[in-house]
Amino acid sequence: MIVEMKTGAGKTQVNAVVEKAKSLGLGVQMNMGTDKVVVAMLGGNTGQIATDVFAILPGVERVTRIMKPYKLSSREVKKQNTLVQVGGVEIGGDKIVVMAGPCAVESEKQLLEAAKQVKSAGATVLRGGAFKPRTSPFSFQGLQEIGLALLAKAREQTGMPIVTEVVDPHEVTMVAKSADILQVGSRNMQNFTLLTSIGKSGWPVVLKRGFSCTVTEWLTAADYILTEGNPNVILCERGIRTFEDSTRFSLDLSAIPVIKKASHLPVIVDPSHAAGHHDLVPALAKAAVAAGADGLLIEVHPKPAEALVDGLQSLNPAEFTKLMAELRLVAEAVGRKI
Amino acid sequence: MIVEMKTGAGKTQVNAVVEKAKSLGLGVQMNMGTDKVVVAMLGGNTGQIATDVFAILPGVERVTRIMKPYKLSSREVKKQNTLVQVGGVEIGGDKIVVMAGPCAVESEKQLLEAAKQVKSAGATVLRGGAFKPRTSPFSFQGLQEIGLALLAKAREQTGMPIVTEVVDPHEVTMVAKSADILQVGSRNMQNFTLLTSIGKSGWPVVLKRGFSCTVTEWLTAADYILTEGNPNVILCERGIRTFEDSTRFSLDLSAIPVIKKASHLPVIVDPSHAAGHHDLVPALAKAAVAAGADGLLIEVHPKPAEALVDGLQSLNPAEFTKLMAELRLVAEAVGRKI
Amino acid sequence: MIVEMKTGAGKTQVNAVVEKAKSLGLGVQMNMGTDKVVVAMLGGNTGQIATDVFAILPGVERVTRIMKPYKLSSREVKKQNTLVQVGGVEIGGDKIVVMAGPCAVESEKQLLEAAKQVKSAGATVLRGGAFKPRTSPFSFQGLQEIGLALLAKAREQTGMPIVTEVVDPHEVTMVAKSADILQVGSRNMQNFTLLTSIGKSGWPVVLKRGFSCTVTEWLTAADYILTEGNPNVILCERGIRTFEDSTRFSLDLSAIPVIKKASHLPVIVDPSHAAGHHDLVPALAKAAVAAGADGLLIEVHPKPAEALVDGLQSLNPAEFTKLMAELRLVAEAVGRKI
Amino acid sequence: MIVEMKTGAGKTQVNAVVEKAKSLGLGVQMNMGTDKVVVAMLGGNTGQIATDVFAILPGVERVTRIMKPYKLSSREVKKQNTLVQVGGVEIGGDKIVVMAGPCAVESEKQLLEAAKQVKSAGATVLRGGAFKPRTSPFSFQGLQEIGLALLAKAREQTGMPIVTEVVDPHEVTMVAKSADILQVGSRNMQNFTLLTSIGKSGWPVVLKRGFSCTVTEWLTAADYILTEGNPNVILCERGIRTFEDSTRFSLDLSAIPVIKKASHLPVIVDPSHAAGHHDLVPALAKAAVAAGADGLLIEVHPKPAEALVDGLQSLNPAEFTKLMAELRLVAEAVGRKI
Repeated sequence: MIVEMKTGAGKTQVNAVVEKAKSLGLGVQMNMGTDKVVVAMLGGNTGQIATDVFAILPGVERVTRIMKPYKLSSREVKKQNTLVQVGGVEIGGDKIVVMAGPCAVESEKQLLEAAKQVKSAGATVLRGGAFKPRTSPFSFQGLQEIGLALLAKAREQTGMPIVTEVVDPHEVTMVAKSADILQVGSRNMQNFTLLTSIGKSGWPVVLKRGFSCTVTEWLTAADYILTEGNPNVILCERGIRTFEDSTRFSLDLSAIPVIKKASHLPVIVDPSHAAGHHDLVPALAKAAVAAGADGLLIEVHPKPAEALVDGLQSLNPAEFTKLMAELRLVAEAVGRKI
Repeated sequence: MIVEMKTGAGKTQVNAVVEKAKSLGLGVQMNMGTDKVVVAMLGGNTGQIATDVFAILPGVERVTRIMKPYKLSSREVKKQNTLVQVGGVEIGGDKIVVMAGPCAVESEKQLLEAAKQVKSAGATVLRGGAFKPRTSPFSFQGLQEIGLALLAKAREQTGMPIVTEVVDPHEVTMVAKSADILQVGSRNMQNFTLLTSIGKSGWPVVLKRGFSCTVTEWLTAADYILTEGNPNVILCERGIRTFEDSTRFSLDLSAIPVIKKASHLPVIVDPSHAAGHHDLVPALAKAAVAAGADGLLIEVHPKPAEALVDGLQSLNPAEFTKLMAELRLVAEAVGRKI
Repeated sequence: MIVEMKTGAGKTQVNAVVEKAKSLGLGVQMNMGTDKVVVAMLGGNTGQIATDVFAILPGVERVTRIMKPYKLSSREVKKQNTLVQVGGVEIGGDKIVVMAGPCAVESEKQLLEAAKQVKSAGATVLRGGAFKPRTSPFSFQGLQEIGLALLAKAREQTGMPIVTEVVDPHEVTMVAKSADILQVGSRNMQNFTLLTSIGKSGWPVVLKRGFSCTVTEWLTAADYILTEGNPNVILCERGIRTFEDSTRFSLDLSAIPVIKKASHLPVIVDPSHAAGHHDLVPALAKAAVAAGADGLLIEVHPKPAEALVDGLQSLNPAEFTKLMAELRLVAEAVGRKI
Repeated sequence: MIVEMKTGAGKTQVNAVVEKAKSLGLGVQMNMGTDKVVVAMLGGNTGQIATDVFAILPGVERVTRIMKPYKLSSREVKKQNTLVQVGGVEIGGDKIVVMAGPCAVESEKQLLEAAKQVKSAGATVLRGGAFKPRTSPFSFQGLQEIGLALLAKAREQTGMPIVTEVVDPHEVTMVAKSADILQVGSRNMQNFTLLTSIGKSGWPVVLKRGFSCTVTEWLTAADYILTEGNPNVILCERGIRTFEDSTRFSLDLSAIPVIKKASHLPVIVDPSHAAGHHDLVPALAKAAVAAGADGLLIEVHPKPAEALVDGLQSLNPAEFTKLMAELRLVAEAVGRKI
């Protein structure tokens, strides 16, 4: 942390900064510039100390953080890539994992049909929402417990591991019975009560990026799960909110190489929610693989025109099968497999 | 809802749109343009129907929503302003309400000192956080239950109603024992489980705007509370995330006249979290009152330099007293009182 | 400028950073941390040196700029407020200046009517666009030279100074003949060829903020004008682009106190372009004055329903007269006059 | 265009809307809903009429545009892909075009070295800036005329066509003498004077996306060039401004499939300016090709550590050669060549 004093700040003001640093167990190094004094704080934990404790002191112009605020998700703390193992599927290794299925579980018929279709096309994890956080209280909220039971049945019949969302910190154990991977939705990325509860469960989790959160905040949210002793965190980029209105969100594929540099955690991409339109999904899915993603989360519905939720962004089974063939070629081109 | 067909869309495709509309109980009106067919959907509830159900059909170019998705928070549903009554204080009336106090409850001494100071300066509600949702798990998370007890004590000693945050849907009843107004933080605006739980409690609530949510999404989130039969919703603008980096968030004061037109709910402003720096708070607080806000939520700490959380954005008691005097003049200039 | 080395960076790498600094005439101060080495660069001009020259070197983790990149517009360089004098009107002093008139000059009748109306309501500068930069080439582009002649006529008849936009660096002298203040539109804030040309002219100029530029970039753009020896720069906040869609742009009133702290230049506010709807203009105009703006730029049209450009955001003369009365009260409440 | 009346709007108000439509040569279709009247405007040119002309009328709630504002760049107007031919290189066809070279022309030695290196690695167009629009007036502004002469020399020696930026509408002819493709920088995308001047020249042009402009605004800006009779427009995505701070801009790869659907113009991608760091460029370049880009614009410098501008985001020749090999594999995987 670097504390820059105002031009003309006096000795007493500089001393107050130094005293504050000492009281927090930090070392200091003084830089006496021609115009200003700059105090550098030394110590392993400055990423966790609020900049405010110095910024508020008289005579301080600005405080700049140099250490990143995240720690456990950082590659500085753990050099090798984290591999998450779920029901025979490895996430974060050479093989790119495709998770596919309907946005919402709607009925036994719909779910089982979707499951068989995505499996036969090559997906290895089945997605499907039982608890649906919806913008409006008047929209379909998911089949809830009934949906969970259907997911368990689909797993039994197809052998595919299940990924499904959990929204209430008190329902983690219940949802985990029907799910191999829990999902934290974008709107809950900073629901710290939920993150802590999932951390305690030890269950594998897909942590979707908050649609207006920085990569730094995302990795810091992952720390909430990791610090409870749960190492099985899979990050999922799903588009950020910007001014652009031709897509639902702007898929931030730059986040993939950024995370690969900064963190050891696997990162997958959900092109369906970002695009908001099935026409755009194939191009973005291929781009995600080319950019280095460890997996994809793709919405597939047996009959998109009859979907209760997000039909416009769902691929139909034929489109998904075609995409899988294309993805295999792109994966090979970047030295991986699907 | 307006469904625009593609240039050259055939009769079968148009008919499919019309059939879909009928199956949803909607009337239709056909517009046969020179280039394109446009189908207008008629019916009172089109704001609650997903545009996707039409957009996914073959031959459809685009679907445009005309009805707003929110309903109960809308001024079309309720013409007169909602007034929320809390312990002798009315929010949403002529008198502008100032809620002030420390960001976090840190100790009995700190809280009681702050309470007396803000009361003597003219604040009528005491704010203070017991449960603090923090970006990093390694930061101070609040005094929690102990903090609630201190808030109850401050209320007893000063007679001021209390506003404090709740973060867990299962703790609403517990927090409500020490609080007159619950607060939903910005990161929880779309935590629908929490909103529903607060809706059921009937307790007055300050609903902070999600820092990347539109006014439309915010009013739709308010519907989650209203639809459970709880009319006591106070909206709070606290800054949105933009590219600008000289402030922590960009305070969106345009939201005030927008909401006054669109909704009957009272709206207050938190300049402290938006600005991120105490130097900027007075100008923004005055601007909020001039723009028509029904109240303010301001961070005041007896000794900002010793604050455990957000010291930089807290006013000290002298600054707050000075600001209150200035606010009275601005309130009068726009025909209101403080 | 602070150069943070990677954990484990070797002596040779640190030395290369030091050598680079010396080659640029900078002093260095070394901070040997437990984990990392941090090198602070000392010297008066580090705000003008690209961070890249260090960031690119092997072993460097990150470079943080501490000095601001702007210089001449900074309050560190000039302590007292800049006052711009234009035809008997002072901008930046105690009196708040209201510039008003139609978005575009449409006809002699329209302009003269508007001029008389805004003058009688208390505006002291007349605005009107002759050159209109429009998003689409098929939209009305302004009356151009004919418009300039009409503005000159309006000045003659009313005695009001004129503010009008210039879009071509080679037309500065021509436009200046009919204008007392040149205007640089939002889309041209970083048209550096235009800024330099205006700088050379010495003419007073309203520099509108680019709708996606930070305050720092805005003040740095002002430096392009100031460095040519033209001190007569008036900044104008007119809304920034965000995700919010209930207004055309999000008016960033926080920029006012931020600029008052960082710069000596006067700053005015254009609520009309930000809001995009006349209903919202009065609340935002009052908020701007309460926040400390030195002036306002407001669109007024004799008959908004017949305006060729931006009719929806224009006040009619009666609305403007009413607003002026309200603004006087707010101005007094914050110790100023209109 | 759809004009929605307010609930309870009277006959006179509806009639005024209809009359206005007729006066503009539009047909109307009335939709008498249970709550509201909605008037649909019919006619081929509604995309060019401002929504304001209706929105301002009494009793109107909201006006929604259905036709896109752009016309000549639209695929509705021209079905087949536009191919731009430049010195033996075709842009927009099966073969992906790589344009590479230094950000700024710094010296004869630097430019010729770079030219030979990128040519031998497989680039077919040489990039290099002679006029550099810089955020600060105190930064290096390019070699200007001298730089143009060096570019002409590099073309002579290598046979590669040149792409270089033009910033002044009055310098288009001069720059075109040394350039095969003109470039409009991001900050000039809405410098309509410059666009018109380039349109008149007929010269091929790379139109970079404004960093805060929507795809719709970008295609509408292209119309400024096309409407002057110049069909040789190449779009270039280079990152948009968002809240994310781990990259300089957020590369919006979704824009590629969006444009391929909406427009006939070729689109290339500049990953260097978006990323701001050479480490991220390869992943983003591969993603761009996988997403369907027609070309790439990549910064390569013989010695990035000595670059005067943007060294951090420049690849060195070895990195570029390696990337070209990887790009060939990805291009083949999506059925194209480099």
